[in-house]
Amino acid sequence: MARYKCKIAYDGAGFYGYQVQPGKRTVQSELEKVLERMHKGEKVKVYASGRTDSGVHARGQVIHFDSVLSIPEERWLLALNAQLPEDISVLAVEKAADDFHSRFDASGKEYRYVIYRGKVRDPFRRHYVWHYPYPLDVGVMREATSFLKGRHDFTSFCSAKSEVEDRVREIWQIDLKEEDDLLIFRFVGNGFLYNMVRIMVGTLVDVGAGDMRPEEIREILMKKDRIFAGKTAPPQGLYLWEVFYGEKRPDDAGPV
Amino acid sequence: MARYKCKIAYDGAGFYGYQVQPGKRTVQSELEKVLERMHKGEKVKVYASGRTDSGVHARGQVIHFDSVLSIPEERWLLALNAQLPEDISVLAVEKAADDFHSRFDASGKEYRYVIYRGKVRDPFRRHYVWHYPYPLDVGVMREATSFLKGRHDFTSFCSAKSEVEDRVREIWQIDLKEEDDLLIFRFVGNGFLYNMVRIMVGTLVDVGAGDMRPEEIREILMKKDRIFAGKTAPPQGLYLWEVFYGEKRPDDAGPV
Repeated sequence: MARYKCKIAYDGAGFYGYQVQPGKRTVQSELEKVLERMHKGEKVKVYASGRTDSGVHARGQVIHFDSVLSIPEERWLLALNAQLPEDISVLAVEKAADDFHSRFDASGKEYRYVIYRGKVRDPFRRHYVWHYPYPLDVGVMREATSFLKGRHDFTSFCSAKSEVEDRVREIWQIDLKEEDDLLIFRFVGNGFLYNMVRIMVGTLVDVGAGDMRPEEIREILMKKDRIFAGKTAPPQGLYLWEVFYGEKRPDDAGPV
Repeated sequence: MARYKCKIAYDGAGFYGYQVQPGKRTVQSELEKVLERMHKGEKVKVYASGRTDSGVHARGQVIHFDSVLSIPEERWLLALNAQLPEDISVLAVEKAADDFHSRFDASGKEYRYVIYRGKVRDPFRRHYVWHYPYPLDVGVMREATSFLKGRHDFTSFCSAKSEVEDRVREIWQIDLKEEDDLLIFRFVGNGFLYNMVRIMVGTLVDVGAGDMRPEEIREILMKKDRIFAGKTAPPQGLYLWEVFYGEKRPDDAGPV
């Protein structure tokens, strides 16, 4: 028996999110279906660094599973990709320590969020960006990120549906990069609550649109109530970009 | 009654091609459905610069139609985009001369074709590139393009199903550009036969893979028989990029 760690990418457009849900097409169920077939009908449970919602994408999701099959790492990659549907791709497979856990061992994550600011919608981007064709003051949005960076109780930036008790997280880095008609957000931190990135983006857009002052973010954080933050940005602009393990820190994360 | 010329883009992944086919979702039928609704049930026929096959994309397809509605051009754009499905987008609308014809007046076209050469398939590109992870000698492919450029009878590079009589076309420009893991072909000419770009790409890939010498293309052209050219490259890498009217020529077309 050995434990395998895999880095995977998926296009979230065709999935009801990552996690298994009865009767729905999810990333986890597609992975487990293929592994079950490879293990002659034996169920193999797949663990991820965290869930992603319906429509949310991943460029660097990390999963792990245990297997009795003695297959070399590079053959796992080929075998999984040959059987997985085209909207999931295994980017890397490596043998991990027997006690490695994709979720509990993660020391941080990077998410990106992409807004498309073109006047007319782009049919090729409909599943991959938030189309926001209205004016935004990116400078003032950057200013607002300074109030989100650091260690805070992010209750106000967390879905009210979340059952997590400890809502203190530390954000190491938030960058906004303009690239033609795209505005690309990069969030790096030790962990993110349910809908946290999407609510931060929605709130930063409120700031950029002139509906909120940057300093108000400090007050919103203090209120510890979801209703004070901005709207939740739509799922299709969000990408789980990378999961960090061990000592990796924002300075290593490199440029956007 | 006025004639309108529109530039449109569409993601071909969700369509059975451009042209109306009974019971199938096509670009033309989506356009005509919206126009019929706007004209209170009156049918409005839409004419395009040419068809595109199932899975083939357009960044700059041109269509025209006649309408009795007195709507300013900028309102047409908004009204059409508001009602069209998200995988079709109208980029520009202008009033045209009463005798303008999107197909018969076209003086040239630009197509692009995108090959993705990454080792592992990219789930975000599955509908938008041909994934070709094998070695290719791009230098020798560029050499081969010189035999395709110019005025030739392209019967060998035309689907055997085509019923067009005159298969002489002139290709003004063929460029190959490498951009990270992408290889982007650009074809500009006065017209293209059925499957012609895809067969040229398939043949150039045979050359790049070492299965054919560049000079063989001259012989293939002379044989005037489809069976001598390479395979037809898959549809999802192909984009109708621009349609030229009037005096526009390759020198005006600009860089890739």
